[in-house]
Amino acid sequence: VAALSASSLSGLPEICRGDDLAELIVQCAGSPPTDGTLGDQAIVVIAHKVVSKAEGAVIALADVTPTTRAIEIALEQGKDPRAVQVVLDQSQEIVRAANGVLISRTPHGFVCANAGVDTSNAAHDEELIVLPRDPDDCARRLRARLRELTGSAPAVLITDSFGRAWREGQCDVAIGCAGIGPLDDWRGRTDSAGRELRATWLAIADSIAAMADLARTKSSREPVVIVQGLERYVVAEDGPGALALVRPLEGDLFR
Amino acid sequence: VAALSASSLSGLPEICRGDDLAELIVQCAGSPPTDGTLGDQAIVVIAHKVVSKAEGAVIALADVTPTTRAIEIALEQGKDPRAVQVVLDQSQEIVRAANGVLISRTPHGFVCANAGVDTSNAAHDEELIVLPRDPDDCARRLRARLRELTGSAPAVLITDSFGRAWREGQCDVAIGCAGIGPLDDWRGRTDSAGRELRATWLAIADSIAAMADLARTKSSREPVVIVQGLERYVVAEDGPGALALVRPLEGDLFR
Repeated sequence: VAALSASSLSGLPEICRGDDLAELIVQCAGSPPTDGTLGDQAIVVIAHKVVSKAEGAVIALADVTPTTRAIEIALEQGKDPRAVQVVLDQSQEIVRAANGVLISRTPHGFVCANAGVDTSNAAHDEELIVLPRDPDDCARRLRARLRELTGSAPAVLITDSFGRAWREGQCDVAIGCAGIGPLDDWRGRTDSAGRELRATWLAIADSIAAMADLARTKSSREPVVIVQGLERYVVAEDGPGALALVRPLEGDLFR
Repeated sequence: VAALSASSLSGLPEICRGDDLAELIVQCAGSPPTDGTLGDQAIVVIAHKVVSKAEGAVIALADVTPTTRAIEIALEQGKDPRAVQVVLDQSQEIVRAANGVLISRTPHGFVCANAGVDTSNAAHDEELIVLPRDPDDCARRLRARLRELTGSAPAVLITDSFGRAWREGQCDVAIGCAGIGPLDDWRGRTDSAGRELRATWLAIADSIAAMADLARTKSSREPVVIVQGLERYVVAEDGPGALALVRPLEGDLFR
């Protein structure tokens, strides 16, 4: 039985600005890595928080001066005005502000709560973690560095937890990737009898992100998960990245 | 390493109305099933198409007389009026009709393209497969029947492929489930230092659905996938079902 599997990598230290994340991952995987963990056919799935921390995509609340607009929204939605300001700074558009939730369109084009800014703890923490400026580029650089360190180039996927418009709860999705086709297009392909094989256009990278999040054990902090058994989707070139998953504005029926 | 895994079950025959799906799954799993495949800790993930077929949730286009509204929408959106009529019949509301896509709210409350009706092939096929009337009940009955046949009660999850408002492609989500908590709520839980452990409300059942779809090989038809390694989410009671994943109307910011 050809099985698909995912395991979290344990032992990663707290990540700080400037850390060589790829090197830390290689250290955690052991030497040599077991079972093709960082091999050419594996997918290394990384929660964006550690990528953001490593590249310094962190904002100290003490440095933030909220604008009038941020103060107004904060009052309406019951939030910290400085945290709202950070969300505004990380948004190209606020799509909705209601029920204490800000739904943003980020500069990358992602539509998500709070522009992906971790504001859950704004009252207690001094720092907010924001999305990397270019998560696809982060994925490509991590992949290149893994190749440099080990000789192998697993696919790299960077994830975040997004809510959904009509469903409760969150699932992880891909916000950056390298070495994997983010979408698998079966639309219109037919079998020998002329019947459509599968009327679908599969968001492979998002499904992998969701799967990887399940491999994290409950209370632990395990930002890195190794997925194996999807070698059919892992490719030598870095590919279009997760931006291919962003629906263009002209196709958005829910602005 | 505690790994999460998924494998598709091969050998399931074409499913017809009245088939005992649980019995066919047991037959395919072998006797005794290997590696806890249908054990109390496994999750049996089933694409809804076979569930719909088994319960006769299939509509012959020849039996459909389109209303004026269906004919109008069909003309506007370039669709078969009879297929549009079936979508209208399966919707409590058409949320959007644009770009050749109908976004429906189904009687269950799911918001998805074409009310989950498989219209991709309407021009060639004589039958359309619709969603089961009560997918949670289907999941509970399948689970009870598996218990009857094998003495074990794996969790059962019924899935469909849904598009997303702002992302290209589709991911599988749970439309019915039994024996698994569909959501895992970490909101507000804190560690001993008073820091929030994880600011998330995880849509476990949807992540499992997405994962299971990855275990299907490309060209084959494998509606049943066995997921193992998530025993922490499998519970003896059937639980609230996938309806718990539907966001109530009053929380919908995108009507």
